[in-house]
Amino acid sequence: MADILVLGCGLIGTSIGLALHGVRDVVLHDSSPAAAAVAVSRGAGRPWDGVETATLAVIAVPPLATAGALQQTQRLNLARTYTHVASVQSQVQREVEVLKCDLSSIVGGHPLAGRESSGPAAATADLFLGRPWALCPGPASTVAALADVRELAESCGATPVELDADAHDAAVALLSHLPQVAASALAGLLVPADPDAVADHAAALLSGPGLVDTTRLAASDPSLWAEILTLNAAHVAPAVRELAGHLVILAGALEAHAATTSGGTGPDAQAARIVREFLVRGNRGRAVVPVKRGEVSEAFGRVGVSVDDRPGRLAGLLAAAGAAGVNVEDVHVEHVPGKPQGVIELLVDVAAVATLRAALEDEGWRVVDPNRLTD
Amino acid sequence: MADILVLGCGLIGTSIGLALHGVRDVVLHDSSPAAAAVAVSRGAGRPWDGVETATLAVIAVPPLATAGALQQTQRLNLARTYTHVASVQSQVQREVEVLKCDLSSIVGGHPLAGRESSGPAAATADLFLGRPWALCPGPASTVAALADVRELAESCGATPVELDADAHDAAVALLSHLPQVAASALAGLLVPADPDAVADHAAALLSGPGLVDTTRLAASDPSLWAEILTLNAAHVAPAVRELAGHLVILAGALEAHAATTSGGTGPDAQAARIVREFLVRGNRGRAVVPVKRGEVSEAFGRVGVSVDDRPGRLAGLLAAAGAAGVNVEDVHVEHVPGKPQGVIELLVDVAAVATLRAALEDEGWRVVDPNRLTD
Repeated sequence: MADILVLGCGLIGTSIGLALHGVRDVVLHDSSPAAAAVAVSRGAGRPWDGVETATLAVIAVPPLATAGALQQTQRLNLARTYTHVASVQSQVQREVEVLKCDLSSIVGGHPLAGRESSGPAAATADLFLGRPWALCPGPASTVAALADVRELAESCGATPVELDADAHDAAVALLSHLPQVAASALAGLLVPADPDAVADHAAALLSGPGLVDTTRLAASDPSLWAEILTLNAAHVAPAVRELAGHLVILAGALEAHAATTSGGTGPDAQAARIVREFLVRGNRGRAVVPVKRGEVSEAFGRVGVSVDDRPGRLAGLLAAAGAAGVNVEDVHVEHVPGKPQGVIELLVDVAAVATLRAALEDEGWRVVDPNRLTD
Repeated sequence: MADILVLGCGLIGTSIGLALHGVRDVVLHDSSPAAAAVAVSRGAGRPWDGVETATLAVIAVPPLATAGALQQTQRLNLARTYTHVASVQSQVQREVEVLKCDLSSIVGGHPLAGRESSGPAAATADLFLGRPWALCPGPASTVAALADVRELAESCGATPVELDADAHDAAVALLSHLPQVAASALAGLLVPADPDAVADHAAALLSGPGLVDTTRLAASDPSLWAEILTLNAAHVAPAVRELAGHLVILAGALEAHAATTSGGTGPDAQAARIVREFLVRGNRGRAVVPVKRGEVSEAFGRVGVSVDDRPGRLAGLLAAAGAAGVNVEDVHVEHVPGKPQGVIELLVDVAAVATLRAALEDEGWRVVDPNRLTD
């Protein structure tokens, strides 16, 4: 009897095997013998013989195939506890009820990791390190089953987050699916009607890091995301509708403002108030988004250094910081387009900023004003 | 006679003086003597005596005060050429016409830099380095005046981008103002109705870098942005309306999908097609966004190293890369929340990836699979 039976040797299934390498006894299976062979060859586990049982079965197949695979696995009585890794949880939970599975031994799971790559060759032992792993027990799930799945998540280096399936789907609709929608919608407006048009030209020449950040997700795979958005349509649709509603109100206020003479009162002043409240609400929402440690401005300060773009400059700079006894928490390199120079920002404890500036200046580095570092 | 007369010693005016230090003879003035004194003490230029003329006058006051200041300066015949730095150009251009200014010697300018800080103390010589500087001549502007303003932008290290005022305002509406709107709208949906609600809890625990990036601009100053959005309302309003329109269509498709049984045909298949086309359009729009050199995936490759979070790790890693003869183009540090470890990504020429991986592994660094580095 194995510890873990992984069914489905894609990115997630194979990465689970790799993460547990040397820690748990893992057996693997995939409907594609080639995929299973790659996973086994990479050290993700032993090939499953078709009959061996395990403490925990992990169904790591596409969401729409998940419930059927759970049913089959249970019929063969292959494990004590069953979990899966579907990115939308409610539908799987409804399907296993319809299929009359044993609901006591099933606990849904969703590791929030690695969505942009696929296949066993893309798998890695580090995939789940520090990432959330949602655990979605059903009402009938046992405490023992939940403990088995929690231990899986923790053994893979992830942080288990327990919540019910509907809360999970509502949360990812807002936290993952809606940002994708906003990025795609925003980028969609940049599609030039005429590729040689001025707007296109301007986009290439006048855009900054704000545009780059807000549209990054728009590069995602449309087929994958069409599946995710439709599978979670019940939660995503009202969120998109609400987002559009706020924008319609803002557009109305801006139209009213544009229609009045600037500096006027009445409708114009009301429009300005609506615009401001829209922005203040954005401030409040952003405040609940956990940011990287490096973005917590209170605790860390930035020191910028203007450098030429030659090998070893970054290493030399970091070595200088190390010699000054300053721990660099993060680094950001800003290249100056078309010029052989750039600005390197070092993020350090706010108490160490002055020390680092002085040490670098003493060594002849060109420390730039911190205000250079905003955009 | 000075080279440059800067009127307004805020962030932009003072930074222009600092950028030109030792290169051009700059005289400075501000309606606040304290602001002018700070600018002078920082080396941005000589105090203006109220009568000295200059080749170029730079009006660096708030947008709504710009046209009046241009008129006054021209009446005193203080310069050969006049420019300003307003972030919305058309309104200034209309106002100087109404004020019967000499339009031949005026060329509007807008350095796209440094919006989040203010005041002469925040100014820096590096502010414009590598940033676009929009030049917006009017139909009556002379070629000589345009050349004067172009030289100013270039002397400050910026990249001049010439376009007419309306094209400028339309471009920044789409490239700068709309991303702000999208980020604020998205973040606005995260405001928890009840601070102790599950959604809030989930936002703190389940969000990833996609959410962080798409909502970053939502932290901007609401007062400043309310001014910018209303000043450019004529261009921003239709863009916001169009953005909302695309979202309404998407919401309708997702609602139709949610209403039908999954896997059905007819309206369901049409809904899926609409969702997919929405995402494909986002792909096409994102393709026109210029990204940092570090994000051009073709030319550069990533090498990730898992490290503990102790002083000197980053320096040691960069030193190892330098010893291997590999030029590191960019660095990204990903902390693992709550754990004393992280992953450092090094961006290098794609041809150097294998060399760097081998060199680091030889030295005992824990190189992680590149697929770990996607999210």
